[in-house]
Amino acid sequence: MPRVRVTREVHFNAAHRVFNPAWDDARNLEVFGGCANPEWHGHNYELFVTVEGELDPETGYVMDLRALKELVEERVVADVDHCNLNTQVPWMQGVIPSSENFVVRIWERLEGHLPAGVRLARLTLWETPRHYVEYEGG
Amino acid sequence: MPRVRVTREVHFNAAHRVFNPAWDDARNLEVFGGCANPEWHGHNYELFVTVEGELDPETGYVMDLRALKELVEERVVADVDHCNLNTQVPWMQGVIPSSENFVVRIWERLEGHLPAGVRLARLTLWETPRHYVEYEGG
Amino acid sequence: MPRVRVTREVHFNAAHRVFNPAWDDARNLEVFGGCANPEWHGHNYELFVTVEGELDPETGYVMDLRALKELVEERVVADVDHCNLNTQVPWMQGVIPSSENFVVRIWERLEGHLPAGVRLARLTLWETPRHYVEYEGG
Amino acid sequence: MPRVRVTREVHFNAAHRVFNPAWDDARNLEVFGGCANPEWHGHNYELFVTVEGELDPETGYVMDLRALKELVEERVVADVDHCNLNTQVPWMQGVIPSSENFVVRIWERLEGHLPAGVRLARLTLWETPRHYVEYEGG
Amino acid sequence: MPRVRVTREVHFNAAHRVFNPAWDDARNLEVFGGCANPEWHGHNYELFVTVEGELDPETGYVMDLRALKELVEERVVADVDHCNLNTQVPWMQGVIPSSENFVVRIWERLEGHLPAGVRLARLTLWETPRHYVEYEGG
Amino acid sequence: MPRVRVTREVHFNAAHRVFNPAWDDARNLEVFGGCANPEWHGHNYELFVTVEGELDPETGYVMDLRALKELVEERVVADVDHCNLNTQVPWMQGVIPSSENFVVRIWERLEGHLPAGVRLARLTLWETPRHYVEYEGG
Repeated sequence: MPRVRVTREVHFNAAHRVFNPAWDDARNLEVFGGCANPEWHGHNYELFVTVEGELDPETGYVMDLRALKELVEERVVADVDHCNLNTQVPWMQGVIPSSENFVVRIWERLEGHLPAGVRLARLTLWETPRHYVEYEGG
Repeated sequence: MPRVRVTREVHFNAAHRVFNPAWDDARNLEVFGGCANPEWHGHNYELFVTVEGELDPETGYVMDLRALKELVEERVVADVDHCNLNTQVPWMQGVIPSSENFVVRIWERLEGHLPAGVRLARLTLWETPRHYVEYEGG
Repeated sequence: MPRVRVTREVHFNAAHRVFNPAWDDARNLEVFGGCANPEWHGHNYELFVTVEGELDPETGYVMDLRALKELVEERVVADVDHCNLNTQVPWMQGVIPSSENFVVRIWERLEGHLPAGVRLARLTLWETPRHYVEYEGG
Repeated sequence: MPRVRVTREVHFNAAHRVFNPAWDDARNLEVFGGCANPEWHGHNYELFVTVEGELDPETGYVMDLRALKELVEERVVADVDHCNLNTQVPWMQGVIPSSENFVVRIWERLEGHLPAGVRLARLTLWETPRHYVEYEGG
Repeated sequence: MPRVRVTREVHFNAAHRVFNPAWDDARNLEVFGGCANPEWHGHNYELFVTVEGELDPETGYVMDLRALKELVEERVVADVDHCNLNTQVPWMQGVIPSSENFVVRIWERLEGHLPAGVRLARLTLWETPRHYVEYEGG
Repeated sequence: MPRVRVTREVHFNAAHRVFNPAWDDARNLEVFGGCANPEWHGHNYELFVTVEGELDPETGYVMDLRALKELVEERVVADVDHCNLNTQVPWMQGVIPSSENFVVRIWERLEGHLPAGVRLARLTLWETPRHYVEYEGG
């Protein structure tokens, strides 16, 4: 059967602060600018989750998109929506909550939770309408 | 010469019903939900057709985009726009009209119809603004 | 208190057929083109619901947007999503399901169901990304 | 000369918390849900500033759009971008930082600062890609 | 019958130069910046044409959108697409081709060409994705 | 450390004319249509610049996005914004200014100017909202 990629978008918003706790305020301000603001700032995130697999001839689907959406809502959105990435999300602890670290941790939340024969192929995370990060694992 | 990918968007709308005729209504409802509605539903589809090839130094083009658009209009859009994918599109017969099957069949409609030296590289088909499928052949 | 307009987007998809049952097929084809296809076609609709009212100083809101979304989901989306506007939606009977008639009927579904002091100000209904209708009542 | 409306988009992001300090946490949670999270959340805001006036026959402009953009950057964006609306923006003090209150305060920041003959006509503020507020003064 | 507004989008691209021929180069550069470049620059324009009228009970339409699109293609797009607004568009002569003057001239091209009972209600012209002009006549 | 791709969008507008100076006008018109108009036409370009590298554990970044934006502004946008690609951009001389040639020349402007450990991974250049080109080097 043909292998097809299927992508579902989800969205959420969150507060964060991009700073390195090993540095003093001046160094953080120099490297991160306003992103290091101690009073936080935030974003509307748009996350595109792409899975890949063979077409199932019985359904015409690679995977039920409602099941994919529920998985992402349950393992990612429920933990981060209207939250503070620095202080309230257990699986974001220990890293600077940049988009790059965020997308890698989201990958870890989803990988291994897909149906047999379906693999997580790509995550695309828009932090603003003007920049995004992509991660394909590895 | 450099190899570049060129993408043209086309759009159309259609009705369909996602269901497996080998199953009874209850099973179809369980697996496909409202998508199996016997009275149909429909979508505005956005199709991005990507071709790849070497730059032609005489034109600066990989391929004339007007010719690409005409090809897609003639071999895909003319058959599906304002139509019912289940009952009116000859080349969609025998498969469940999911986005996955649809994109594979569109691939078969376009492959082999491009100019020499240009290959079909990727199809991206948005069924709603919140999900899409990608196919690169094979 | 200042008067502000607040808009919430909802989306759904549906099948329909735009035709006048008082006319024969030839006349319908001439006037409506492919929109009159007896086998249906469909769209992803994007509906923007705008309400207007004074700011409530206790909440800073004109109206709770979650309540607005629930109202529209309950009185509009639940009846039309993944449905056939011609055959399955009781409150669309007796009119041709053009965008114009659809937006007027949606207005009738929502008007009179808003909290005291909040009025329905405008409905904007996109049938495709290239055209939309607006209705402000009256 | 004809009267034309001209609109410029600007964007920024910010953290906020929507809550009423006169209420206890349970009441705030009931009314505002996750928006009342004491650890903040945030958004990418898109602000469309619309001015209206007669065409100047010497320039063909209602107003120089670079000057409009600079005005908004200086009197709005510089104060709120990458900031906390509750704790860091002097002109947001004393109100709940809902979109409705925010757009009214932005209006007050801009009105009276436009060139002679040009009036502030409308502000449209998107807090997420799924909802926005509009204010026309008064 | 209810009065509804109907909007159709069309697009085209063009070159132009925004400058006042009564001024010298230095003055033009000062007032218009790069927009006065004697070697031209250009844009992808998106034009939204809005008409208003009563619903026709026989069609459910305010006006046939295909007819509206053909009118705009014939009286506007055919003259400006892939053209130079300063040197090649007869109905743009005598004015600086700013968005403001352009939208007023487009209005003059369309007004009086609509079916009986339908009025031109609004033109919205995006010159870039970050700014647009609106004109409602008068 | 994980390897992540990071993308920044920039925009500009420009005039151009797509024609082959070795051909006469009739041949150019036949091959390029309105794109060969001797009086020019133009576009709003949207350029997405993608870089790839390992996460820097000290910053959580692959590369500072402000630095990436400044690089693209300095080496690309400053030369082309509000300009004529045929007559005013030194690094576009000698080629037909199609999107394909343009994206290859932009690649040459950026490659080799990124920080150590970061590679230019992909350029995506939208010439209109309906078509774009992609280049990954080589």
